[in-house]
Amino acid sequence: MPGTVEKKLAELGIPIPTPATPVANYVGFVRTGNLIFVSGQLCFDAEGKLVATGKLGATVSVEDGQKAARACAVNVLAQLKAALGDLDKIARVVRLGGFINAAPDFLETPKVMNGASDLVVTAFGDKGRHARTTIGVAVLPMDAAVEVEGLFEVT
Amino acid sequence: MPGTVEKKLAELGIPIPTPATPVANYVGFVRTGNLIFVSGQLCFDAEGKLVATGKLGATVSVEDGQKAARACAVNVLAQLKAALGDLDKIARVVRLGGFINAAPDFLETPKVMNGASDLVVTAFGDKGRHARTTIGVAVLPMDAAVEVEGLFEVT
Amino acid sequence: MPGTVEKKLAELGIPIPTPATPVANYVGFVRTGNLIFVSGQLCFDAEGKLVATGKLGATVSVEDGQKAARACAVNVLAQLKAALGDLDKIARVVRLGGFINAAPDFLETPKVMNGASDLVVTAFGDKGRHARTTIGVAVLPMDAAVEVEGLFEVT
Repeated sequence: MPGTVEKKLAELGIPIPTPATPVANYVGFVRTGNLIFVSGQLCFDAEGKLVATGKLGATVSVEDGQKAARACAVNVLAQLKAALGDLDKIARVVRLGGFINAAPDFLETPKVMNGASDLVVTAFGDKGRHARTTIGVAVLPMDAAVEVEGLFEVT
Repeated sequence: MPGTVEKKLAELGIPIPTPATPVANYVGFVRTGNLIFVSGQLCFDAEGKLVATGKLGATVSVEDGQKAARACAVNVLAQLKAALGDLDKIARVVRLGGFINAAPDFLETPKVMNGASDLVVTAFGDKGRHARTTIGVAVLPMDAAVEVEGLFEVT
Repeated sequence: MPGTVEKKLAELGIPIPTPATPVANYVGFVRTGNLIFVSGQLCFDAEGKLVATGKLGATVSVEDGQKAARACAVNVLAQLKAALGDLDKIARVVRLGGFINAAPDFLETPKVMNGASDLVVTAFGDKGRHARTTIGVAVLPMDAAVEVEGLFEVT
């Protein structure tokens, strides 16, 4: 039975997918004490297709970048659900790291990352307000437009 | 009444400014247990103007990059002061992450980041000696030359 | 007397070197509570020479990149050994951050980073399975091909 966070997201048309399984010697999340570190998640949609590929400032629009960032955040939550069973167990979103596949002259990376930040605040309310670092990177796996990692405190 | 750390910085002509307020759904810092994660801070000066914009190895000199890194570190401390009221409550600077807006052939990113490392050691002495990761990134928000994030242990 | 982790690595021909000493106001690791944050380590070999310099997707092959990532991971373990004396005190590899010096069109950064992930799983077994974020960066210090940082839980 989904908790209140997952119900709210479902009502908004945002189902939590089965998380991606890493295809190498690492895992989607690690818990240490009451902290959960979630691996960098790419912008896969529920069908396993990347929402946007390529670089912001070149072939990807800010709007599509925001959708990609939001998809990354959904995938971060999918890892959390796999970790905890219930997203209601999250006490606080501590930090999101946002990595934007960007042309060297693209200056709107924070606007892109807002797609992820808005999603977690939608999900968790005030507990979703997080520390954040956003950078423009040279390239991402599979040419994904955005990658997001997360750190969470568990009740 | 400022504590000894803030007094020392003031005597060196380094006032702690009011921290920048994030203009999106995130916050400048999050505390979890006795750790404080500070969001990536750009190189704004006390007047809210970026100390340096553009890329190291292209239009920004190493010296100006160091000044920018130092300004980032001051802004990290500003977030800490907002979090704690008194910088004397810091038990240890755990980690700084340095993101240098760099041309692909610029090899002096650690020298640039020393501007931030030196500032926190000036402020905190041995407690200021931190783990550090420095990378050259494709681009930063507003074309800032440097961004620095921080992790701190509180007494 | 080396512990079982270090013995296993020695049998595989992977000695743990003396860790690099940072040449600035930072340190190779910081412990806070039962967490150890290890600074970003470059791909130096046991003789202090970089295993690979330059960019993946340009002058560095995936295979050489993997060797570089593995060397970074060995250097991360060297910092841990300096911190703890005995690698057997590691309860869990919590997170690795992988920074690949990459041309903007190089899409195999995860494959490169596997060189580091495989090494820590070889060393620690299931306790070595970690959260991971891999990004392609514009440039690294000394033009190193790979840099890896780590977070560990201590028993």
